[in-house]
Amino acid sequence: MKKLEEYIKANGQIISDDILKVDNFLNQLVDVNLLSEMAHTWYEEFKNQGVNKILTIEASGIAIATMVASVFKVPLLFAKKSKTTNMSNNLYQAKVFSFTHQKENVIAVDKSYLTKDDKVLIIDDFLANGQAVLGLMELARQAGANVIGVGIAIEKGFQKAGDMLRSKGFNIKSLAIIDKMDPSSKEIIFR
Amino acid sequence: MKKLEEYIKANGQIISDDILKVDNFLNQLVDVNLLSEMAHTWYEEFKNQGVNKILTIEASGIAIATMVASVFKVPLLFAKKSKTTNMSNNLYQAKVFSFTHQKENVIAVDKSYLTKDDKVLIIDDFLANGQAVLGLMELARQAGANVIGVGIAIEKGFQKAGDMLRSKGFNIKSLAIIDKMDPSSKEIIFR
Repeated sequence: MKKLEEYIKANGQIISDDILKVDNFLNQLVDVNLLSEMAHTWYEEFKNQGVNKILTIEASGIAIATMVASVFKVPLLFAKKSKTTNMSNNLYQAKVFSFTHQKENVIAVDKSYLTKDDKVLIIDDFLANGQAVLGLMELARQAGANVIGVGIAIEKGFQKAGDMLRSKGFNIKSLAIIDKMDPSSKEIIFR
Repeated sequence: MKKLEEYIKANGQIISDDILKVDNFLNQLVDVNLLSEMAHTWYEEFKNQGVNKILTIEASGIAIATMVASVFKVPLLFAKKSKTTNMSNNLYQAKVFSFTHQKENVIAVDKSYLTKDDKVLIIDDFLANGQAVLGLMELARQAGANVIGVGIAIEKGFQKAGDMLRSKGFNIKSLAIIDKMDPSSKEIIFR
């Protein structure tokens, strides 16, 4: 998506060769006009596939996924994070390792909110090592729900999780795929 | 707002005489049609007051505030929570005590995202003891920003923070105010 790439070039901060900060339009201060265009792009990709629920993970996925749910006119479901598993019988749970924070979180959704009748579109802000998306897919698997596809704002193409998921047959629609970024020259190469 | 009161009566779970669970339409599974109606209600209240930024706190405020920002066509800013203050010079920070989790969080926004030129509408899902709203107001105060008003989905009227803030002259627009709820009879009395 050209506009997202332009936003990244104009506003993104390359912290290191694998960390990109987009707090100023996507992750803390959020440009809702951009979100709306992003949501419509995913809608064009997935609109004829019976999506009936948008699934994301707190906290940074929620704003994007809310706009997507609004365009699809279906409910939004967000998995909650906790540091420990509470072993509730009423939760689907999956472990997600955060490389950013170097700790393992358990993500969970209430069993009554995700069922075998659901056709889910997973939405998240970043795809790097794929831990969050794999955790959300695991929740869907436990529920017997069908994952129609995955919408990602920014994929770090050099970290390979996107290619790995595509090779398994998943429809991963990333709006910007970064193949390389250089903190000294500030250059970003999109796929 | 009649529709929100009806949703609360039909779907809310009264856990105790001061805890109401609305995970099934507002706080985990999110009904975006309801959010849209809520956002338009706040828009009617605040549309002529120059609001140029919507301010909330992660995580449960984000979905609601995203929809509000979309209706106002202004950016969304969400304060981040952390357990410790990192004393960054680039952050406005405030302490917020969570009675639900019995711990103190520090909430923070990057200084460049909130300025003295901002006219802020604060949005949150619940108003009970007022800690979150007071924390967000404190961030605005540090930035010199003007708080135009506060939009709350569900106010626990029996916990008095709403009345305290109104007595100080703030425009608090709660869409449903619960004056009493009874976990045994399941009765909810709205103001």
